[in-house]
Amino acid sequence: MAENTIQAYAAMQAGEKLVPYQFDAGSLLAHQVEIKVEYCGLCHSDLSVINNDWGNAVFPAVGGHEIIGTITQLGSEAKGLKIGQRVGLGWTSESCQFCDPCVSGQQVLCTGEKTPTIIGHAGGFADKVRAGWQWVIPFPDDLDPSSAGPLLCGGITVFDPLLKHQIQAVHHVAVIGIGGLGHMAIKLLKAWGCEITAFTSNLDKTDELKAMGADHVINSRDNAEIKAQYGKFDLILSTVNVTLNWKAFLNTLAPNGTIHMLGMVLEPMQIPAGALIGGAKSVTGSPTGSPFALRQLLQFAARKNIAPQIELYPMSKINDAIERLESGKARYRIVLQADF
Amino acid sequence: MAENTIQAYAAMQAGEKLVPYQFDAGSLLAHQVEIKVEYCGLCHSDLSVINNDWGNAVFPAVGGHEIIGTITQLGSEAKGLKIGQRVGLGWTSESCQFCDPCVSGQQVLCTGEKTPTIIGHAGGFADKVRAGWQWVIPFPDDLDPSSAGPLLCGGITVFDPLLKHQIQAVHHVAVIGIGGLGHMAIKLLKAWGCEITAFTSNLDKTDELKAMGADHVINSRDNAEIKAQYGKFDLILSTVNVTLNWKAFLNTLAPNGTIHMLGMVLEPMQIPAGALIGGAKSVTGSPTGSPFALRQLLQFAARKNIAPQIELYPMSKINDAIERLESGKARYRIVLQADF
Ligand SMILES: [Zn+2]
Ligand SMILES: [Zn+2]
Ligand SMILES: [Zn+2]
Ligand SMILES: [Zn+2]
Repeated sequence: MAENTIQAYAAMQAGEKLVPYQFDAGSLLAHQVEIKVEYCGLCHSDLSVINNDWGNAVFPAVGGHEIIGTITQLGSEAKGLKIGQRVGLGWTSESCQFCDPCVSGQQVLCTGEKTPTIIGHAGGFADKVRAGWQWVIPFPDDLDPSSAGPLLCGGITVFDPLLKHQIQAVHHVAVIGIGGLGHMAIKLLKAWGCEITAFTSNLDKTDELKAMGADHVINSRDNAEIKAQYGKFDLILSTVNVTLNWKAFLNTLAPNGTIHMLGMVLEPMQIPAGALIGGAKSVTGSPTGSPFALRQLLQFAARKNIAPQIELYPMSKINDAIERLESGKARYRIVLQADF
Repeated sequence: MAENTIQAYAAMQAGEKLVPYQFDAGSLLAHQVEIKVEYCGLCHSDLSVINNDWGNAVFPAVGGHEIIGTITQLGSEAKGLKIGQRVGLGWTSESCQFCDPCVSGQQVLCTGEKTPTIIGHAGGFADKVRAGWQWVIPFPDDLDPSSAGPLLCGGITVFDPLLKHQIQAVHHVAVIGIGGLGHMAIKLLKAWGCEITAFTSNLDKTDELKAMGADHVINSRDNAEIKAQYGKFDLILSTVNVTLNWKAFLNTLAPNGTIHMLGMVLEPMQIPAGALIGGAKSVTGSPTGSPFALRQLLQFAARKNIAPQIELYPMSKINDAIERLESGKARYRIVLQADF
């Protein structure tokens, strides 16, 4: 097969099942890197693009943005990487390099031209994927490549707020919603040394979450239980995309505490100014993370033996994997192994 | 007159005009300081207490919490202060000293027993006022006592967020609402070295605000003008207590920017999580400030010659002064001079 031919699984139209799809990617650009995909996590955002939930998908759409693989081609301007090296690639594959956020190392907030890996760009449900070299993250030798993919999107999403909010081991952090993101948050916070409270609507997970590191597991739909947490949390990471009683959760914050939003709740949050003013509280949010944070996360996960808990599918069974994700039963993240 | 007799102006019932009122304050407690009032600012919160807007006023109510005076009595446990020394006292007159915020120097967030100067306690519309020594702030020699009172409540309210959000001279800060608080924010930000945008509903103030230091003055009710500020501000200080188009203001924030709420807007803010996530933005709030921040503010104001712009009334004309405040015409803060 020609060097620049990529084999992938694509949705040819919004909402359709994925089918094998082959395309000519053209010559690699000078600043780009080509990666042979070994593993690729399956994230809810892949479904959002396949179903064109956000209205900005481009078809045929090749999802996949939690990618682990090895470098097969290097552009002449790509820095610091080697052919054959194992790397990771997440939500973003290109940023402008010139805007203020880019030049200050906050590339995830790029205000210039920015390319998400799976929108108008072919992602990791493929034998190969391409990206600007800055977003191609060196993979530590002592990290398991089969389970690490989800760190590149779900993992960095919950890791970056710990950096931003200067969370330390003395802090008490709560996580709302324990799915793909939430379970990684618990594992990261355990390694971070924090006291951890998990809010979940499914108390069947309690023992498992405690084994992961949660100190307390609380029913996220029990208002009396929420109320009983008055004044406790330095940080709440909210990974859900449904409306909760935000005012009640603001009351569970310690003075100076923060609710950090990661889930795209469509209905505006109702935030009384008075609930922020008295205790100097904050409501914040963030997308994924910049290249330096991604490097730090992979190195931290390697050093602390943090592996997302995954279910592994061959990539050729990708439609089954999507069905499993949609069922809500996956514990806690699905990874596809390339088998082209 | 007996040493512990205090002469004041009090509202005997909610909403009534103030009348002369004399009471026996009893013996000074060991940790307390008694201050002979020289000047006292008039703040909207005084009216809220006099009118019992918050339902927690205690009558007779003696308002006044932007106090400058000299020490007349010192309790045996009061530290570092001297009889005759000039000092300031603001919104808070006692805090528990034991809770985590108190013991970590964030006394304004005290979660234990805390006494506001004018709720269940007699404030500065009086010849003398008492407070716990921690909240009695040494007054710099080279600061004008006749105009400095408003720094103790309005001033600290807009100063503390600059500390909290680590604002530096490179930042672009917007102020919404240019009354008592807002005009002090402009003067402080000017001395801080920031680029300053003032949002006001009264463009008649434009020249005056530019003279104070505003680089840009914008109509806060002109949606097109607000929209044109896309992506600019590192921090917005909102001093108004009415609902604005918060989503539009979130769009005027630079990446990592913050809207900081100081005005008690009663209607909950409508905050779409997506407006926080993409640019890693924040909505925060805070009350006044802790003793160390108050000390820093007075020293900073002295060093930078920052004086609130005031209208001076004799305290015996307090009802006229209240009428003037209620008219909305005061430029920009009223101060009462004690004339007992
Ligand atoms: Zn950029
Ligand atoms: Zn994702
Ligand atoms: Zn306290
Ligand atoms: Zn006040």
